[in-house]
Amino acid sequence: MKPMPTTTTPAPVAVAAPNTLRLRRMGIDTYQEPVLYLHRDSHVCHSEGFEAQSRVQLRLNGNTLVATLNVVTTDILAPDEAGLSEAAWRLLKAQPGAPVSLHHPVPLESLSHVRAKVYGRRLDQDAIDAVITDVAAGRYSDLHLATFVTACAGDHLDLAETIALTRAMVNVGERMAWDGGPVMDKHCVGGLPGNRTTMIIVPIIAACGLRMPKTSSRAITSPAGTADAMETLAPVTLDVAQIRRVVDSTGGCIVWGGAVRLSPADDILIRVERPLDLDSQGQLVASVLSKKAAAGATHVLIDMPVGLTAKVRSAQAAAQLGHQLEQVGQALGLQVRVLQTDGVAPVGRGIGPALEARDVLAVLRREPGAPADLALRAVQLAGQLLEFGGAAAPGQGLAQARAVLDDGRAWQKFQAICEAQGGLRTPPVAAHRQPVLSRHSGTVIAIDNRRLARIAKLAGAPSAACAGIDMHVQPGAVVTRGQPLFTLHAATPGELAYALEYATTQAEAVHVMEEAL
Amino acid sequence: MKPMPTTTTPAPVAVAAPNTLRLRRMGIDTYQEPVLYLHRDSHVCHSEGFEAQSRVQLRLNGNTLVATLNVVTTDILAPDEAGLSEAAWRLLKAQPGAPVSLHHPVPLESLSHVRAKVYGRRLDQDAIDAVITDVAAGRYSDLHLATFVTACAGDHLDLAETIALTRAMVNVGERMAWDGGPVMDKHCVGGLPGNRTTMIIVPIIAACGLRMPKTSSRAITSPAGTADAMETLAPVTLDVAQIRRVVDSTGGCIVWGGAVRLSPADDILIRVERPLDLDSQGQLVASVLSKKAAAGATHVLIDMPVGLTAKVRSAQAAAQLGHQLEQVGQALGLQVRVLQTDGVAPVGRGIGPALEARDVLAVLRREPGAPADLALRAVQLAGQLLEFGGAAAPGQGLAQARAVLDDGRAWQKFQAICEAQGGLRTPPVAAHRQPVLSRHSGTVIAIDNRRLARIAKLAGAPSAACAGIDMHVQPGAVVTRGQPLFTLHAATPGELAYALEYATTQAEAVHVMEEAL
Repeated sequence: MKPMPTTTTPAPVAVAAPNTLRLRRMGIDTYQEPVLYLHRDSHVCHSEGFEAQSRVQLRLNGNTLVATLNVVTTDILAPDEAGLSEAAWRLLKAQPGAPVSLHHPVPLESLSHVRAKVYGRRLDQDAIDAVITDVAAGRYSDLHLATFVTACAGDHLDLAETIALTRAMVNVGERMAWDGGPVMDKHCVGGLPGNRTTMIIVPIIAACGLRMPKTSSRAITSPAGTADAMETLAPVTLDVAQIRRVVDSTGGCIVWGGAVRLSPADDILIRVERPLDLDSQGQLVASVLSKKAAAGATHVLIDMPVGLTAKVRSAQAAAQLGHQLEQVGQALGLQVRVLQTDGVAPVGRGIGPALEARDVLAVLRREPGAPADLALRAVQLAGQLLEFGGAAAPGQGLAQARAVLDDGRAWQKFQAICEAQGGLRTPPVAAHRQPVLSRHSGTVIAIDNRRLARIAKLAGAPSAACAGIDMHVQPGAVVTRGQPLFTLHAATPGELAYALEYATTQAEAVHVMEEAL
Repeated sequence: MKPMPTTTTPAPVAVAAPNTLRLRRMGIDTYQEPVLYLHRDSHVCHSEGFEAQSRVQLRLNGNTLVATLNVVTTDILAPDEAGLSEAAWRLLKAQPGAPVSLHHPVPLESLSHVRAKVYGRRLDQDAIDAVITDVAAGRYSDLHLATFVTACAGDHLDLAETIALTRAMVNVGERMAWDGGPVMDKHCVGGLPGNRTTMIIVPIIAACGLRMPKTSSRAITSPAGTADAMETLAPVTLDVAQIRRVVDSTGGCIVWGGAVRLSPADDILIRVERPLDLDSQGQLVASVLSKKAAAGATHVLIDMPVGLTAKVRSAQAAAQLGHQLEQVGQALGLQVRVLQTDGVAPVGRGIGPALEARDVLAVLRREPGAPADLALRAVQLAGQLLEFGGAAAPGQGLAQARAVLDDGRAWQKFQAICEAQGGLRTPPVAAHRQPVLSRHSGTVIAIDNRRLARIAKLAGAPSAACAGIDMHVQPGAVVTRGQPLFTLHAATPGELAYALEYATTQAEAVHVMEEAL
């Protein structure tokens, strides 16, 4: 018999405090999953039996976080260091070199409820509260989150479960409360490119004497969100006390919702729903209404674009979803009204934070050439809100909203809101611009919104606020060879070159049908 | 108005070949998910619009792989490098510095079937084939896999879907074919610690003239798998041609299944099922039988331990699962027989590769003091297999198996199999050992298998083959203060110290009830 060689393992390094390592920022963006990096020779790996994909609890200055472990075998990390991904660094409020202690996390009892739902059982309020509490505390891994989202997909949540989920989401976050009287809000289900109506609606509503404390999101996969566009005109990262001051003095605000943790569990679930592309009506309803309830709204208008390429594809589906929104809203003490709108065409001309803000300013300032489609959508929605909140008689809302926009009161109110949020400022203008020309004469028969978004992002949007696309044509336009179809805006020559190369050689974003010879 | 500062982004670095970067092994173990690391300033990130969590296709020398992107902002990676996790490095067959090209992956059409299943629809063979083909090719992210596993959990797969899933899993892997006549196999559903019956059964069956080409797994979360224990006695990493030669010459083999890719989709699904802890009867059946069908088995005996702490908890559940295994087996041309066994106590005395191999050798060599429980389970299962394969008359299998073990034919056959696999060798012996003593006199009323496994892993098992635990007591034993309960084995003093500290201060693995005074 040949002897088998004995494996040798280096003795782990001993340190004074058990389970304690020095924090190190790895600078690795794992999207939102918190990841912990430990060296294979770390004494904590050995003594605690941690392995790749283990869930590990980190404790630092009273903050705790559960992260997924990746084990490092090279010298990008020392054995006495605990490396953190960007998400983990942020959530733990970490400082370089600080001593972090590592532990086995408490068992997740609430996973038994997730499994029960997977196996087809109904969940009551207590079960859903337990799940959402753990989700909001960051105790679920991405795999756990994917399982919960999948178990709730389609129509797997009934009305009672949807109400319970919405309540649970509200309860784990911050809540804003307002004095008596209506508090207006709006939400667009499945947004359209360039649909920045919020920045026009809020000043109209506030100018008519109704309160509208509006929280909006930043772009996640798109070239701009409402919070990104608004930020080119005024600060949007306000805390609850600041929001209250702005709304008390002006009647409205347009701030970034991510700064106020109104429905933190929803923010976490959304990050796994997106790549899975699963529709869950119950979760959609809970997502929308939990944020509105937490923001203290009393009246919520839902803008529901309906169209073949929109999220909601038929009037029937819109009616069904609208009915559920109204019922869940009622259970939470919210009045909900749904308005079906045209979900076919993009809105406005700019794509990118500053360019979209420019469209909004043009509408508010009644400039010649301001995008009429954006103005029309905004006054239609504002009119509904005015009637809904009792500031306009039935049938009179649209005319009143139009009047407030036309006589400059909306623009004055918008300036007041911006000043209250920290000061109105001029959107940045891109230093580098280049038109993209039509290669032949003909008729614009299609505009590919997905490719336009990609080009705008290559040009640097949304992290470069000035970057993006300025559209010069709409479907149906007749163009001649060499005529500009759109203009690229970028902060650097390199980004301009990348966007231009993609736009001119790889992908036709504006389809021009040649005239017959 | 205050001007908003323009964001500046450094111009990306240009290189000759578009979308091509140099490969770099990051040495990061992400368990099994392939992860790609790109620097934020990489020109490919910019030109392709890749972001954290993007799915990216890598191409190298005709190999392709889809990985999940993490974006790096520090200097642990250069902008012209493409870093790979260990799983990605292995799957792509990467070499340091080799030029890899990066692309957007083709859209995953099969995800529409996964969504259909989530929404409650039945999947036909074509749909399941499409899903399993993409899973086996590594095109699903962990989130996608979690969704598919969740959609199939519980009883969500009916008999026809389970048959289709089993067929699909067989079709995407390698297959072994054997000449006419029975080909025996066995499988244990939810193994017990130390249950190394396979290494005793195979030589008994082969010595009686039946073929038994057995593929086994390595430890994943336990201190040893059958392949780990067998490897301390003979090589187990054999390819299909080598397996055929061993079986042709000896009638049997005990090799590592992971080396032959018999059901690669199953290997991938298992890695996400484990942390989710979801039971899916359909997937369990497909997992077991796809590997047996791919290995060319005709007769499969299922060892089903039943007990309160085992995977199968009642005789009724065992009967129901057994019935489905038989039906799916029939559809795939396999004869399946299920044997319910005692699922309460651990088996044998050693925990760890070499210590478990030592128990097996003691049984095969009929040494005094060989673990009788291990020998009994082995001959019971072997007896069933002999009757099942027609090598023993009904009711005569057990006596025949016992005779073949007792007269040394099983030991001779085992040595022949080891020689054919590359040479019998002596298991390594740990250089560092330490007994753990009872702190008081009394009766052993409980043994915590989970804590024992943890201690064995702290001591270095399974990567140090010699490491682990040697048990000296069983439940019911009466012990005196200072009597050894078990002995720790380790390759290094450091590992011995860690295991000892955990065993003596943190966790009581053997519970001794003190005598009344």
